[in-house]
Amino acid sequence: MPEIIFLLQVVNGSISNIYTKIIANSCEFLNNYLSTRSYVCGYIPTSADKILFDTIFNYKTIDNFAHVQRWYKHIESYSPNEIYSFPPYNSYQLESLITKFLDIQVAEEVAKLLELKAQLNETGVSTNHVCVNQKFTLKTAKGTRDFSPEQMALRLSVLDKIVSVFKKHGAETIDTPVFELKEVLTGKYGEDSKLIYDLKDQGGEILSLRYDLTVPFARYLAMNKITNIKRYHIAKVYRRDNPSISKGRYREFYQCDFDIAGAYDPMIPDAECVKIVYEILTILNMPTFFIKINHRKLLDGMFEACGVPKDSFRAICSAVDKLDKSPWEEVRKEMINEKGLTEECANKIGEYVQLNGKSDLVQKLLNDDKLSKNKSALEGLESISLLLKYCEIYGTLDKVLFDLSLARGLDYYTGVIYEAVLVGDELTGDDYSVGSIAGGGRYDNLVGMFDPKNKEVPCVGVSIGVERLFAVMEAKLVASNKKQRTTEVEVFVATAQKNLLEERMKVCSELWDEGFKVEHSYKKNPKLLVQLQHCEEYGIPLAVILGESEIKNGVVKLRSCSNTRRGRSIKNISSR
Amino acid sequence: MPEIIFLLQVVNGSISNIYTKIIANSCEFLNNYLSTRSYVCGYIPTSADKILFDTIFNYKTIDNFAHVQRWYKHIESYSPNEIYSFPPYNSYQLESLITKFLDIQVAEEVAKLLELKAQLNETGVSTNHVCVNQKFTLKTAKGTRDFSPEQMALRLSVLDKIVSVFKKHGAETIDTPVFELKEVLTGKYGEDSKLIYDLKDQGGEILSLRYDLTVPFARYLAMNKITNIKRYHIAKVYRRDNPSISKGRYREFYQCDFDIAGAYDPMIPDAECVKIVYEILTILNMPTFFIKINHRKLLDGMFEACGVPKDSFRAICSAVDKLDKSPWEEVRKEMINEKGLTEECANKIGEYVQLNGKSDLVQKLLNDDKLSKNKSALEGLESISLLLKYCEIYGTLDKVLFDLSLARGLDYYTGVIYEAVLVGDELTGDDYSVGSIAGGGRYDNLVGMFDPKNKEVPCVGVSIGVERLFAVMEAKLVASNKKQRTTEVEVFVATAQKNLLEERMKVCSELWDEGFKVEHSYKKNPKLLVQLQHCEEYGIPLAVILGESEIKNGVVKLRSCSNTRRGRSIKNISSR
Repeated sequence: MPEIIFLLQVVNGSISNIYTKIIANSCEFLNNYLSTRSYVCGYIPTSADKILFDTIFNYKTIDNFAHVQRWYKHIESYSPNEIYSFPPYNSYQLESLITKFLDIQVAEEVAKLLELKAQLNETGVSTNHVCVNQKFTLKTAKGTRDFSPEQMALRLSVLDKIVSVFKKHGAETIDTPVFELKEVLTGKYGEDSKLIYDLKDQGGEILSLRYDLTVPFARYLAMNKITNIKRYHIAKVYRRDNPSISKGRYREFYQCDFDIAGAYDPMIPDAECVKIVYEILTILNMPTFFIKINHRKLLDGMFEACGVPKDSFRAICSAVDKLDKSPWEEVRKEMINEKGLTEECANKIGEYVQLNGKSDLVQKLLNDDKLSKNKSALEGLESISLLLKYCEIYGTLDKVLFDLSLARGLDYYTGVIYEAVLVGDELTGDDYSVGSIAGGGRYDNLVGMFDPKNKEVPCVGVSIGVERLFAVMEAKLVASNKKQRTTEVEVFVATAQKNLLEERMKVCSELWDEGFKVEHSYKKNPKLLVQLQHCEEYGIPLAVILGESEIKNGVVKLRSCSNTRRGRSIKNISSR
Repeated sequence: MPEIIFLLQVVNGSISNIYTKIIANSCEFLNNYLSTRSYVCGYIPTSADKILFDTIFNYKTIDNFAHVQRWYKHIESYSPNEIYSFPPYNSYQLESLITKFLDIQVAEEVAKLLELKAQLNETGVSTNHVCVNQKFTLKTAKGTRDFSPEQMALRLSVLDKIVSVFKKHGAETIDTPVFELKEVLTGKYGEDSKLIYDLKDQGGEILSLRYDLTVPFARYLAMNKITNIKRYHIAKVYRRDNPSISKGRYREFYQCDFDIAGAYDPMIPDAECVKIVYEILTILNMPTFFIKINHRKLLDGMFEACGVPKDSFRAICSAVDKLDKSPWEEVRKEMINEKGLTEECANKIGEYVQLNGKSDLVQKLLNDDKLSKNKSALEGLESISLLLKYCEIYGTLDKVLFDLSLARGLDYYTGVIYEAVLVGDELTGDDYSVGSIAGGGRYDNLVGMFDPKNKEVPCVGVSIGVERLFAVMEAKLVASNKKQRTTEVEVFVATAQKNLLEERMKVCSELWDEGFKVEHSYKKNPKLLVQLQHCEEYGIPLAVILGESEIKNGVVKLRSCSNTRRGRSIKNISSR
């Protein structure tokens, strides 16, 4: 059982060269061990992983061991600094894990283990100098998190406001399964397909977790032959990214989409999407924002007019997309050095993509010979012109900015594209843009990809970046020094003396039956102070206080627990 | 390229014995082909799967081909009748899929394919008698489904009512990720662990989809060292079952849990759980229901008193659990023949488990010598007695039934157990029980399983069977002949003449800005009839109708579209 020696060596944190051969032999055991565990010890990476990682790094004989490989790659995905700062592991726990694992093996092997343990002691390898007091730390999967009652209360109140706007515009809601047949997602996300989470092949269909809500929506439309619908969908999506959690990006996160599907007249639904983003950011009291608009056909026409080869459109488009983060000079270099454009061609693009404005800019570009002679560009400009007119009618024009540098990453857009941007406010102290807070556009060909006859259903929609909105709202809450209530309890029924539990329960029951939101202590004889502290902690505005004299007289004492007295008034409630 | 012959044979639905050898050689190709596809052709099982299935069944040489095996097991999971009724496949589509698949292979092979096709034509195997007009049917993953706007509207209204009850009782809500480290779920579900969905090993942690909300809740408490909380959690859970979809059971479904965690005095939180179930079923206008209660300690004590060996408690408990579906005689046979009880022992159990009642039954059992001498049984009986008293105070006693046959499947219960049962009503026409609609109990040891020091947090909770409730509510809606509104639109802004789009948009914008829920047509010049039909279809109560004369006079015409006029009144709205 050389594997035991190996793992006990890990326990002791000292692997000497003598064990080289043993380690090679241990891989099979290790592979079995890791087939049911994410980490060597406990639920989080620890220094045991680091030691094992370094060891394996030296020997690299893991090609045939799938689970060792998986584990190795995973640990490799951490930066050296992160690996260095893995917390220490609990040796007792690791030993118990190994023993437990061995228990599952046949009894003979356990006998051998005992024998081996004796041998180990003879060789002087002590297992005693282990660090104790180590916590058995639980964790959620990498890139995911729990939401506490405080976070949920905030999130639900934000979503509630957003949904109220969707409902104002007559949107229905649908839901789709969290996983789809893999084929449904294949070929929709370009390079990002590698970030799709697949389900394990346990016999059955090949499934993947949804990557966004748009592709399932298109699948839903095609599958049910729906040609027009206005729907919102708020749900979690999954991306096996290595996101920076410190920047608020996760592997599981909410998307909140509003889309209008149907063959309608130009720019009417498109303008309503702008209106909806405008209303949502307004109702959420967001600091200064603006909504950039552009048009894919204008971009294509502009590229054509500047002499970009047709098969480079997409690459150049994604280079332009970087202009919100990088200065033109850098993007220009990328276009020339990496994407192979001529300097002349890049310079021409540069003249355009640094422009932004409103109707005046549309006019200017319509007067531009190069663009107005290009069919695609002309179509785009006319669309933008119409959209701006409708935005004026809908009262959103003050926040709308026609911006030629807006390109959007996704391939499937075919017409207008949007992006709402929050600009710095008192919270951040700077005046840089906090970044995109909503985005979308028209995608007229996606549904057709699912239809046997490629029948298209034109769609336009926006995705509200709710995770960023949550983060901004959380920051605001912290800055305001206010506490988020997590319940809506109106009355706490308290007792001032002992042995009044049943009286308390009767009053609660009466109040519940009348529709009040009521709590009481689950202790038989709680202290009054503890009960009132609970009211304070949870922001409960009123306390009914029961004492023996009140019960005799058939009345209750009512006490206001907050300065801001609120809600329905409760008076003259008899305790029987 | 014998594989092509093989697959084209499938296309033609005739596999002759001559191809035996070829088929064996084809497995590798087939394995590659199936590595990216759930079915042979399209998104659903078709007769192409049937043909291939039958063929493979005869040759059984698939042991080394993981994807063929997966596919085979999946098709095998359908009943012969289901397989027989797979719809026909589209041969053109299959051919194109194969071709597409081959396109991905190196160009040389494609050349060979063409050569082969020529050979095929020489051998007289025609690929022309294929069925056309076949739809490329999309589907959701097996056991899952989309929810239409009608279904979502109903579901949200039901959930809204349920949440209102949770909030009345001061519950907070939390959320946890849809997947957990596999280790978190391991060892919590007994035999059912095989139904857990695992994520594919894509390098990283070993993850599984959550199987219920209780284990993630316990993990959340232990991880955050929370010792008391009252929370609800409504979310989807995943079970890789082969459920009968016709009976409304799915692989992805909602759970709706309410739990009270904390060390409190006996039966106070337990009685509130009963109250909550009572209020929910009442607020949802459910037909006759009752809430069965029992106690795990009473069951254990009873088994002991009847002479059941201690290591058979669990097995006998799960046999008792079947009494809601099977008569005692059958369960008795199982206990004797399968679980090895003596007849005498089984008969003793039978005397007890057929009892139900209220406080009278508690008294009767307290007077029973065998039970009252058993510490565990006595403890259980005293708890039930206290619970019944609290239920009387909370006004729920009329629906509560102390039932000794209630056992509940899950291992982790330690105290009181509940189950709410809906009994037949006018909908089903029979007077049999429709089955369990909520269930739960006390589980004092689950959180300790996640704590390094096994520190326990006592918990009690109920899970509302919302999927069944949805089904009952849907049936009610259908029976009532009413239509579920899917939007909340109050006013539709219509135009009676052409070229009034902009006027219409202005009125909409004004109404939106005033907070009204408003829609209009996305067509430039829609017909009035079509606009009014939309109002009827979506149950929109009011239409603002704009004509040129109204616009001149600065007024609008208001028309009621429904008999049941509702909502806010809208008058004297100028069109400018």
